[in-house]
Amino acid sequence: MAVEHKDMANAIRALSMDAVEQAKSGHVGLPLGMADVATVLWTRYLKHDPADPYWPDRDRFVLSAGHGSMLIYSLLHLTGYDSVSRDDIRNFRQLGAQTPGHPENFVTPGVETTTGPLGQGIATAVGMAMAERHLNARFGDELVDHKTWVVAGDGCLMEGVSQEAITLAGHMKLNKLIVLFDDNAVTIDGGTDLSDSTDQCARFEAAGWVTKRIDGHNTEEIHEALSWAQDQDKPVMIACRTIIGYGAPTIAGTGKAHGGPYGAEEIAGIRKNIGWDHEPFVVPDDIADAWKREGSHSASQHGDWKKRHEGSAHKDAFDAAMRGDLGDIEAVVRAHKQDVVDSDKDDATRKWSGAVLEKLAVSIPEMVGGSADLSGSNNTKAKCQEPMTPDNWAGRYVHYGVREHGMAAAMNGMALHKGIIPYSGTFLVFADYSRAAIRLGALMGERVIHVMTHDSIGLGEDGPTHQPVEHVASLRAMPNMHVFRPADGVETAECWELALKKTDGPSTIALTRQTVASVRKAHTDENLSAKGGYVLSSGEGNEQVVLIATGSEVEIAVAAQEMLRSSGISARVVSMPCVELFAEQTPAYQEETLGKDLPRIVVEAGVRFGWDRWIGLRGGFVGMDSFGASAPYQDLYERFGITPDAVAEMAHALVN
Amino acid sequence: MAVEHKDMANAIRALSMDAVEQAKSGHVGLPLGMADVATVLWTRYLKHDPADPYWPDRDRFVLSAGHGSMLIYSLLHLTGYDSVSRDDIRNFRQLGAQTPGHPENFVTPGVETTTGPLGQGIATAVGMAMAERHLNARFGDELVDHKTWVVAGDGCLMEGVSQEAITLAGHMKLNKLIVLFDDNAVTIDGGTDLSDSTDQCARFEAAGWVTKRIDGHNTEEIHEALSWAQDQDKPVMIACRTIIGYGAPTIAGTGKAHGGPYGAEEIAGIRKNIGWDHEPFVVPDDIADAWKREGSHSASQHGDWKKRHEGSAHKDAFDAAMRGDLGDIEAVVRAHKQDVVDSDKDDATRKWSGAVLEKLAVSIPEMVGGSADLSGSNNTKAKCQEPMTPDNWAGRYVHYGVREHGMAAAMNGMALHKGIIPYSGTFLVFADYSRAAIRLGALMGERVIHVMTHDSIGLGEDGPTHQPVEHVASLRAMPNMHVFRPADGVETAECWELALKKTDGPSTIALTRQTVASVRKAHTDENLSAKGGYVLSSGEGNEQVVLIATGSEVEIAVAAQEMLRSSGISARVVSMPCVELFAEQTPAYQEETLGKDLPRIVVEAGVRFGWDRWIGLRGGFVGMDSFGASAPYQDLYERFGITPDAVAEMAHALVN
Repeated sequence: MAVEHKDMANAIRALSMDAVEQAKSGHVGLPLGMADVATVLWTRYLKHDPADPYWPDRDRFVLSAGHGSMLIYSLLHLTGYDSVSRDDIRNFRQLGAQTPGHPENFVTPGVETTTGPLGQGIATAVGMAMAERHLNARFGDELVDHKTWVVAGDGCLMEGVSQEAITLAGHMKLNKLIVLFDDNAVTIDGGTDLSDSTDQCARFEAAGWVTKRIDGHNTEEIHEALSWAQDQDKPVMIACRTIIGYGAPTIAGTGKAHGGPYGAEEIAGIRKNIGWDHEPFVVPDDIADAWKREGSHSASQHGDWKKRHEGSAHKDAFDAAMRGDLGDIEAVVRAHKQDVVDSDKDDATRKWSGAVLEKLAVSIPEMVGGSADLSGSNNTKAKCQEPMTPDNWAGRYVHYGVREHGMAAAMNGMALHKGIIPYSGTFLVFADYSRAAIRLGALMGERVIHVMTHDSIGLGEDGPTHQPVEHVASLRAMPNMHVFRPADGVETAECWELALKKTDGPSTIALTRQTVASVRKAHTDENLSAKGGYVLSSGEGNEQVVLIATGSEVEIAVAAQEMLRSSGISARVVSMPCVELFAEQTPAYQEETLGKDLPRIVVEAGVRFGWDRWIGLRGGFVGMDSFGASAPYQDLYERFGITPDAVAEMAHALVN
Repeated sequence: MAVEHKDMANAIRALSMDAVEQAKSGHVGLPLGMADVATVLWTRYLKHDPADPYWPDRDRFVLSAGHGSMLIYSLLHLTGYDSVSRDDIRNFRQLGAQTPGHPENFVTPGVETTTGPLGQGIATAVGMAMAERHLNARFGDELVDHKTWVVAGDGCLMEGVSQEAITLAGHMKLNKLIVLFDDNAVTIDGGTDLSDSTDQCARFEAAGWVTKRIDGHNTEEIHEALSWAQDQDKPVMIACRTIIGYGAPTIAGTGKAHGGPYGAEEIAGIRKNIGWDHEPFVVPDDIADAWKREGSHSASQHGDWKKRHEGSAHKDAFDAAMRGDLGDIEAVVRAHKQDVVDSDKDDATRKWSGAVLEKLAVSIPEMVGGSADLSGSNNTKAKCQEPMTPDNWAGRYVHYGVREHGMAAAMNGMALHKGIIPYSGTFLVFADYSRAAIRLGALMGERVIHVMTHDSIGLGEDGPTHQPVEHVASLRAMPNMHVFRPADGVETAECWELALKKTDGPSTIALTRQTVASVRKAHTDENLSAKGGYVLSSGEGNEQVVLIATGSEVEIAVAAQEMLRSSGISARVVSMPCVELFAEQTPAYQEETLGKDLPRIVVEAGVRFGWDRWIGLRGGFVGMDSFGASAPYQDLYERFGITPDAVAEMAHALVN
């Protein structure tokens, strides 16, 4: 007997419910509901090759509703990916299994991005789809021509970040982006009518998408819709009306079907209702064979692509781009540092960042910049970069609009896609808007560079709503995040080099609005920022106190050192542009830099939180312990007591 | 000659541009563009009384596009509020003036909420409008019956949080909420067509709003639209097509008109174009008089309201609600604590939170709860609370939907409106989604309670996307935020009391998913958590080490103490449910609690960042230094080494 669609979809349903029952936790409502749509997509439309999860021109499949992870694990297992074995499915959500509670791309090949925090998947997918169009413009259809598919739920679409993603995608006319909305009308608390009345199709259309509503359990309608979706000139949203927990006798279609094990009775009922009488975790051979066969439907396309790739004039450049090579970045930065020193100029570090970007962007064609509507303030646009638009996909600068969260998520998507090294700017205080996406980049270990200007009360008149006080600390608290806060033009260039070289995670570069004094007066070939902190200026004779500062406060420490010198106190100044890198150095280097038994004063125009590790017991802190205020920045530094006088006074008290 | 609309609108324009020129910074594009709409609104429609900015039944006016702050300062000054003098306008953006760069409600009476971070205003206004409907249901039209007006720009509408706000408002049918969209088609980077193609009216309609497009410089159209807006049964959005920088000869209608001083020549050109030949900061008497007169158009309404209020049977209850009284909360919590101790039960702190809420919500009718679609997991709904819906505004529980950011902002709005003490729940990891609104609550000093459950790797199988690791630290870094992490049922009740009593700022209550052992076995009348940290259990004889722990790790410290005792080491256990409160205690109390020269070990299933202040030089930390993983929580505590064994081992090393 021929294997029917129903049997194949039921294999997903069975594996998903057996895994959740076994784990006694997880979310089977979505896999039960979306099994029909997913089966049609993965056997006919999704361009992928289970033999090579990293085929660069594969379609990207993003399960934005990440709690339904058993859907993707079932699909990977059934279509023959090595990454998900039967044992992994049996060990769903257990330590060491390749089947974590939510899909994690760094654990499971075939998972394109880590999802779970709702809305992140769809917003990340927008970045993937932008990367595809950009690389298509650069390398042509023969190497890059694929789609990005997203399964999103009500929760994803209620999250604000989805609006930023949807409007950006609509504006960019990302017609190769196709969202399959699991329109099951249920959330955890109950029916969506408890909390939402949005006409999702109308909403997407208002953002420039085309939409279609289908019955997500009618294979004919699914086929028709997926075919239709291929030929649109706008992004596509297909609202698939499904029954959450499809087949569950008493809870299908209710909030109870969302998650948690259903229990033996309900599971037995599903087996009966969907006509699946096999033992738990068992997929009969004929169905398994059909899945393997149909799951490999694009293997020959992959073969053709390999041939085109081998013969392509772009091969080397394409491969280098996909690897994310940086060329001779050391030479570029070294030469730039010499120029900075020679210029003998003071400037804001955001402007120094713009200056080094002019050279980096020329040297590294994979760098794609952007800003959340603050291009002129963030100094993120290099002259060689044209805006990326639907009419000029080769452009390397994205006007992201006032969408910090969508921007950060899109950058994650670009980095995951590969072929682009994304960076973009906003004000540091707005890191709060994008934090969920920034964190996901840190968790995934993606090279994404967040340029965050206006990094303290030094921004002045815009006042406390715009003045970061706790943001540097809160980003330093995040695992796998490097926070750079350079002091001048030389350090800014060094920090850019370090951020670009951090290939296993994101970086934040915090930059001033205001002009700061140059503190690195002499050229060094060596990247002194690479150790995170270093002795910028030793005291004369026996040093009595160490002044540790970052960014705009380094010049204050230097001025305090001078004042102390004139009153006979010898102080050392340590510049610490990256605390995380300094923490990675040997204890010997740390002690050599900070001195052995000297009192230490940290100067930073932010909160003390996190600094005591370096201050130790005998020391002090000059910085902020409240929100800021609106005034010219010089007045604020006085008002909040972040001055050379205050530092010198504290040093006197500690030394005497 | 009669004063015309044009003259009055021009007074706003003139004060705004003179102030920005004087300050050499600020944003005059919006005041120039929206002066006509604002003049009509404030002289005819807005119910307010310059003599009493705190009249409870005034309309709320929210300038969501906060950078255009000179619009509201001009309006407050011209209509006769004491809060903004001519000198304040001359000293726009200077230290000590009541005219900060962005509107700050805690600086300037008449400003309803602090805005500037885009999208926050509109989202806060939704909470105000919900509070109005709720209090109307409770106290009737005679005491509460007002509108909430919002001026929002393109930037506000591009931010994701605006979508959460708009869809929530549409679902709730908030027909007394009226958004005036400054539809000037320009952002900082240039025309909105650089980054957006959204049909805003269609978008709002998809969310259940009614909309209208008008020429924002045509007074007749403005009047018609504002009249029409009064009688709708849905929230209203009026897209006002305006010219940003109206009147500026060379830059009106361009991105350059958004902000910054325009310069003398451009300003002279505006004066000529709009027909305003008065000296800077001078408003002729006839125009000033007209403003004062028309600005007081609702003074008699206010008088009528006062009479109704005096005669109302609800007067006392209404006043108490507006003050935010807590009744005899100490007695309620004390009795509950006794019940907890008597029950002799172990449970998850989220469940203990639900238990104390059952009593608090009965006792304090102003408490309005909610959850971002996790009611059952957050245990935030008390039995006495019915859902708040358009058909039952008296309900005290909001199904916020999957909208963490919009929820936090709406709570800010409820607290600002007064009459409601808002709290709501989500998972702690999703504090990242709402952080910008949480911060604004801290800056404004509003009593908003964020219940954040599933507060560590202890949530288990959902994995690292859902496991907060750095979140407790990042919230502790925020000024004016109290982070509570109670250890058991007794501490949970104590922390709720402290959060409710913190009337000058928000609190976060971090709670476990997993069951934890009760550590407070004996009843105390005193709220031991009030000092932030206290000796939970002394060692026998001479103590050799202090174990400091929070939340779910307190039981680990207690178990370690027991293990150490059996190997002859005397350890003290300090429970520290609120580090911020502990930091406020006297040095003497701190030393008494932590011991003088004893090594200290902190145990917390989060990052070490921020703890070194209390660990000191001789001590250690048992916690996380990376993201978590997906597995049952017991396996994770083992895997990441957060166990009594690990604590005891570290203590041995420190003591010996």
